[in-house]
Amino acid sequence: MKTFIDCLPCIIRQALETSRLSTGDEKIHKKAVDRVMAFLMESDYQCSPPEVARHVYKIINEVTGERDPYKAIKAEYNRLALKMYPRLKKTIVDSADSLLTAIRLAVAGNIIDFGAGVKFDLEETIRETLVRPFAVYDYEKLKDSLSTAGLLLYLGDNAGEIVFDKLLVEEITGKYSLKVCYAVKSEPIINDATVEDAREAGMAGVAEVIENGQGAPGTILDLCSAEFLEIYNNADVIISKGQGNYETLDGEKEKNIFFLLKVKCALIARHLKIKEGDMVLKRV
Amino acid sequence: MKTFIDCLPCIIRQALETSRLSTGDEKIHKKAVDRVMAFLMESDYQCSPPEVARHVYKIINEVTGERDPYKAIKAEYNRLALKMYPRLKKTIVDSADSLLTAIRLAVAGNIIDFGAGVKFDLEETIRETLVRPFAVYDYEKLKDSLSTAGLLLYLGDNAGEIVFDKLLVEEITGKYSLKVCYAVKSEPIINDATVEDAREAGMAGVAEVIENGQGAPGTILDLCSAEFLEIYNNADVIISKGQGNYETLDGEKEKNIFFLLKVKCALIARHLKIKEGDMVLKRV
Repeated sequence: MKTFIDCLPCIIRQALETSRLSTGDEKIHKKAVDRVMAFLMESDYQCSPPEVARHVYKIINEVTGERDPYKAIKAEYNRLALKMYPRLKKTIVDSADSLLTAIRLAVAGNIIDFGAGVKFDLEETIRETLVRPFAVYDYEKLKDSLSTAGLLLYLGDNAGEIVFDKLLVEEITGKYSLKVCYAVKSEPIINDATVEDAREAGMAGVAEVIENGQGAPGTILDLCSAEFLEIYNNADVIISKGQGNYETLDGEKEKNIFFLLKVKCALIARHLKIKEGDMVLKRV
Repeated sequence: MKTFIDCLPCIIRQALETSRLSTGDEKIHKKAVDRVMAFLMESDYQCSPPEVARHVYKIINEVTGERDPYKAIKAEYNRLALKMYPRLKKTIVDSADSLLTAIRLAVAGNIIDFGAGVKFDLEETIRETLVRPFAVYDYEKLKDSLSTAGLLLYLGDNAGEIVFDKLLVEEITGKYSLKVCYAVKSEPIINDATVEDAREAGMAGVAEVIENGQGAPGTILDLCSAEFLEIYNNADVIISKGQGNYETLDGEKEKNIFFLLKVKCALIARHLKIKEGDMVLKRV
């Protein structure tokens, strides 16, 4: 998916928010935002939003000197989600269709997104996500794929959310005989999960944690490591979490990818012909 | 009120929307937005948002060649409001406090704002505005001022809204013995009312319509005409409609100004220490 000119106000908002997280110096905020605007003026919007974001966050890092401004927020949401874990586990176990409930909760966790600019109430999102109908619902296709797959690649998205993903991975490995690789970003970007977050979430206990070799808030295949690409190419089924992974992989029609996300952006909603807030389980 | 760096995403959104209203050529949209970003990079945000907007909309006019992109929207909302006029008049006449009801409806009309980026439902806004408590409520002070005033200057805001203002002017002139001057912008800017809109609304039948001598979406005194400033300085009481007039006149503490508006922006809400959506009747 290409970047739209409509993305500009959102990119500039993100640049300002991230600059403020990085430093209290207003002159540096302006310098960072000005340099981001200069970059956008040179851009032709032919690449995906995560590709643009990669450059934008690099500029902010350079101007502010802060490499991981969301570090504290990520740790906070990992802690919060881990605290919720026993209750969410019980919700899954007690439900009529435990796999579907785990999928719903994984979508709920996708609301923990500090790039999208959407204020969220995690508890309210969980309540809503457990009952709201999916706007795109390829559940039967996913179950078919899981039942015959030997290798599942799960593309992670954000910190905090990773604990919700862990619940889904546990449910899948409990039901199906397959190996799971869980991919995280190789460098900090916004609140995207890294190996540090996978460690905090205890993901290594249920899946092989791998890095994707790049630090964009999505999966830009051209930038991924050879090790990651080998797993990507050999995976029988891929679960791709969140908007950034959708924006970078929606053209991979020959792969067996299932996009799992909550839509938090008007342009992605338009692209998918659904509404903001909608829940998506979509085979590519 | 100064411009905040937080205003940038909103300004760029406005630039894009206005470019799209002006032309369907996407290359021109990008050229306009790029030139607006270049201007913002040079800006130090020491002036008010309407002052920034004045430059931004001038750039868009230059790049697109379209001087009045909101012309059709303005005419549409004048027509729509005129169609509602008899019903609104009856609502005022039938109410227990007709002046207050007219004030409430004038606030409701303030939702017709194509700069603020807020999607609105006019009928729903009218229903809500008739019962919602004001967040700032200097009604008694306004009545005191009107009861002794010889000259009221009413600073208009937007097309469509001007019909709601007319209802309030009629109510005031029916209750108090004073002269009313109703000020409009001298040049088209966003959907702000001009003499053309005053004509369509029939404002000349109830007030002396004057131009303020400038084309910013507010009242930048340094740019106003001598004729306007004479009336501004001689007015015993001033009713200032909308966000743009508030942003440009909130520092005029020695004047007897009453700001009447619906808050549609998080920064103005913060500045007034109230919430977005709140209704304001505030003596400066």
